Amino acid sequence: MNIYDIAKLAGVSIATVSRVVNDSPKVSDKTKEKVRKVMEDNHYTPNVFARGLGLNSMKTVGLVCPDVADNYMAKAVAYLEKNLRGYGYDCILYCSGYDEEDKRQAVELILKKRIDALVLVGSNYAGGSEEEASYIKEVASEIPVFMINGYIDGENIYCTLADDYQAVYDATEELIFAGKKRILFLSNSDSFSAMQKLKGYEDALKAHKMPIREELKFYTENSIHRTRDNLLLRRNLEFDSVIATEDGLAIGALKYAKARGISVPGEINVVGYNNSELSISCEPELTTVDARGEILCKTAIDSMMALLGGEEIEQKHMVKCHLVKRHTTDF
Amino acid sequence: MNIYDIAKLAGVSIATVSRVVNDSPKVSDKTKEKVRKVMEDNHYTPNVFARGLGLNSMKTVGLVCPDVADNYMAKAVAYLEKNLRGYGYDCILYCSGYDEEDKRQAVELILKKRIDALVLVGSNYAGGSEEEASYIKEVASEIPVFMINGYIDGENIYCTLADDYQAVYDATEELIFAGKKRILFLSNSDSFSAMQKLKGYEDALKAHKMPIREELKFYTENSIHRTRDNLLLRRNLEFDSVIATEDGLAIGALKYAKARGISVPGEINVVGYNNSELSISCEPELTTVDARGEILCKTAIDSMMALLGGEEIEQKHMVKCHLVKRHTTDF
Repeated sequence: MNIYDIAKLAGVSIATVSRVVNDSPKVSDKTKEKVRKVMEDNHYTPNVFARGLGLNSMKTVGLVCPDVADNYMAKAVAYLEKNLRGYGYDCILYCSGYDEEDKRQAVELILKKRIDALVLVGSNYAGGSEEEASYIKEVASEIPVFMINGYIDGENIYCTLADDYQAVYDATEELIFAGKKRILFLSNSDSFSAMQKLKGYEDALKAHKMPIREELKFYTENSIHRTRDNLLLRRNLEFDSVIATEDGLAIGALKYAKARGISVPGEINVVGYNNSELSISCEPELTTVDARGEILCKTAIDSMMALLGGEEIEQKHMVKCHLVKRHTTDF
Repeated sequence: MNIYDIAKLAGVSIATVSRVVNDSPKVSDKTKEKVRKVMEDNHYTPNVFARGLGLNSMKTVGLVCPDVADNYMAKAVAYLEKNLRGYGYDCILYCSGYDEEDKRQAVELILKKRIDALVLVGSNYAGGSEEEASYIKEVASEIPVFMINGYIDGENIYCTLADDYQAVYDATEELIFAGKKRILFLSNSDSFSAMQKLKGYEDALKAHKMPIREELKFYTENSIHRTRDNLLLRRNLEFDSVIATEDGLAIGALKYAKARGISVPGEINVVGYNNSELSISCEPELTTVDARGEILCKTAIDSMMALLGGEEIEQKHMVKCHLVKRHTTDF
């Protein structure tokens, strides 16, 4: 018997139950009575979840990301830590690595700490199977879980997402309008976000009645030099443009072009992803998608504070990306 | 009356006092008796410091850095978190910002948490005045403080440092041997590390009887485009080579050269610092100093574990840097 069951039995929202637990003046006496009766009848004692809603709070948030040395995650963690501290919350950080078992273990370990909420940074916590999502749902039965650019449909899981699907759809379409026929999709991941990007790529091709060629979906490591070398090993692979799921991969493509004496953007257009500092380090400077990491973090914090304050919040927020046009594309 | 006073009065080391507090079998009964008598005579009750040495441990380490979105710090924090967790320690992260008052406040705030040790990441905590060091010394009177690439001479403060002085001395000398006469020192900071680098630059010039020109010490922001623009604003400034205290600044110099049609390394040699991912993103790829951040973190963790285990440790570890030669220099 948990807070969800109580909410269902009482015919009210979870937030209302939490307000009753916290004896909020926002709830009518009649509703309070009804909810309390359901709680009593079912021997429900609010504990961990109520804690997450402000009772016995340790004013501590758990942050879990695969690798804080990654550019995107580092910026997100910096933003989250700074702004949560502004609200008086401390952050415990766990870097989980990318392996499924390690991720599960990190999330389970951090739950043993007295944290008010868990934030999962990056889309690697919702890549795969239903099974993978199950341990996150378990955590969410105790404390609220906030996902930054990941999505799991479940109670007490709140997701802020960049619209990676639309961003790649739009970029692919721009390449098609620029006359490109063979667009390479360059990826290093099967994360939730990478899957959205792939779908955007494929749907844009379909919408313009262009074939989806398996050989143009190119998987590599998130390493500039390895990406270059892997492309050089496949030098018979013809393409006139590249959409990469990370700036580092796009720069690997630039290095490949340089090694082969292919001009960019003259012969090949290249689009990166994340608008990281890497994208202004290279030559030519990279056209790239700004995935709005800071806005995602801000939205998550706003939602968390509203929830911890007893308000009802949306389960899903979608944020539009923005294409930053620099010098590796014709458009 | 603190543990240092007890150690002094008893004529033993701090570590010995802590071993007595922890009733370690490594200490002879005679010494135990002597130390306990001094403690009794002086009404000394071991508390916070003893906690830091394994009693009442929360198995938690505080990590403070100015900005975890910075490449160097992100890598350090990732390494520290992962490896401290390997020893069963959780990490609380505070990003302090760069302002003196904010840094002081972050350190004071994190001390209120029950942490076993404090790690200060980056050389920004020991840049300036004696006064600045005073709040760190205060913390060190309660728990051990570990500085990653910073240095303060004080009890219970343990420092692992890259030999930035020698690294810049050597790089400057290489440029001199390559016939360079006007070497630009490009910096964005007056941190402890930046001061060591400046001294290395000046001493190498002196050793080779070359003048130290004030106009060739160029201060800018840690931004690629702003560095380029600031150099363009001073286009009458003549230089034939650059040593930068950060890779981002060095890449700003590359962008400046490109904007003016100056060839690298043909007309200008450029040396960066940190061997970050930026240094392989640019063209030509950057000759840069590997400041051995991971080794510094490893050394700090090894020292911490030894100390928390009751051993005596060195107050200062110096690690040699390594010049990574790529394509922006003649050597």
